[in-house]
Amino acid sequence: MKKDAKISNAVIKRLPRYRRYLKELQKKGVDKISSNEFSSLIGYTASQIRQDLNNFGGFGQQGYGYNVDGLYNEISAILGLDREYKMIIAGAGNLGQAIANHTHYYKTGFVVCGIFDVNPRLIGLKINDIEVMDYENIESYVKQNQVNIGIICTTKDNAQEVADKLCHAGIQGIWNFAPVDLSVPAHVAVENVHLSDSLQSLAYHMNQQADLEK
Amino acid sequence: MKKDAKISNAVIKRLPRYRRYLKELQKKGVDKISSNEFSSLIGYTASQIRQDLNNFGGFGQQGYGYNVDGLYNEISAILGLDREYKMIIAGAGNLGQAIANHTHYYKTGFVVCGIFDVNPRLIGLKINDIEVMDYENIESYVKQNQVNIGIICTTKDNAQEVADKLCHAGIQGIWNFAPVDLSVPAHVAVENVHLSDSLQSLAYHMNQQADLEK
Repeated sequence: MKKDAKISNAVIKRLPRYRRYLKELQKKGVDKISSNEFSSLIGYTASQIRQDLNNFGGFGQQGYGYNVDGLYNEISAILGLDREYKMIIAGAGNLGQAIANHTHYYKTGFVVCGIFDVNPRLIGLKINDIEVMDYENIESYVKQNQVNIGIICTTKDNAQEVADKLCHAGIQGIWNFAPVDLSVPAHVAVENVHLSDSLQSLAYHMNQQADLEK
Repeated sequence: MKKDAKISNAVIKRLPRYRRYLKELQKKGVDKISSNEFSSLIGYTASQIRQDLNNFGGFGQQGYGYNVDGLYNEISAILGLDREYKMIIAGAGNLGQAIANHTHYYKTGFVVCGIFDVNPRLIGLKINDIEVMDYENIESYVKQNQVNIGIICTTKDNAQEVADKLCHAGIQGIWNFAPVDLSVPAHVAVENVHLSDSLQSLAYHMNQQADLEK
């Protein structure tokens, strides 16, 4: 893998999808796959697939195709999924609880170790065996436990303050569900899940489809 | 608005963000904004902003800038937010419940009118005043109530079957939270929220940052 290569965000966004399809192939006992076969499965063109994977040095062999296990492991390593991440959730409302319950993540090394809220009725509860703690202690907890990722499930008005606290405590990444764009130091990675934006995109595409049918 | 124009998905993805920032400006009583001012706020270049908005015929006036209310309303109309959407949720687990509780959406015309599950322990419950109904009746409910959007919050193994049922019942859009890509007829719009993919992107960017600091 060319560590110094500047890889576009669009390519990075496609890698988890490649990985998902490779996982399905593994489950079906498939050993190798050509870029053409992979193309008809995943819906990207064969040339796009070759181009994407060439970004990382290319793992295919002419006339043989891609080794499924090898490619899966490589992509996992590129994404940084060959290690474990400690995560905490800020905000124990419905969304925070849903994420705490989404144990699916644990399989891939993302472990939620704590949930924080300001609401005294929530503090002390256990959600999926994870304790809801007082938000006051979030900074010291992150420091002491070397938490890697903070998941922000607060309202939009509180999100920036939470982000500031987490950054101050040394967090490396923020997974932000609040409908607001956060301002963080350059060394902190942020990934937004703006659910409203996604729903609005859907509405747009629905109306385009309806226009086409007129 | 040029209805026949082919607008790239990347532009569409940015529109909800423009709209969010315009809403904030409205709240602050700002009437007009230049593309330069808008640029420093939203983080896109002024030229990108002009280019994006030109896709829709352009709403700015040379030497004046953009009218905040006007642009907000135009973008809302382009996204199709000037009407109401009826939504149902398939899967009343944690994620389905979190979405049912996310009343934030209702303000923008997205109304959840029903939740469906196969689990007899959940059927009959009310979540945020919305009834959990028997999954057996999902198809007839969608037809009778002219539901526009189906939200899939099932496991990945059940998602395609649910999508098939919804499409058969005449759904226009699917908001898919299951970690699988759905195959649907061309006239049905799909928007995916692949949470695991998003978390893996975050991990990648965290590791890139860490590499830079080495």
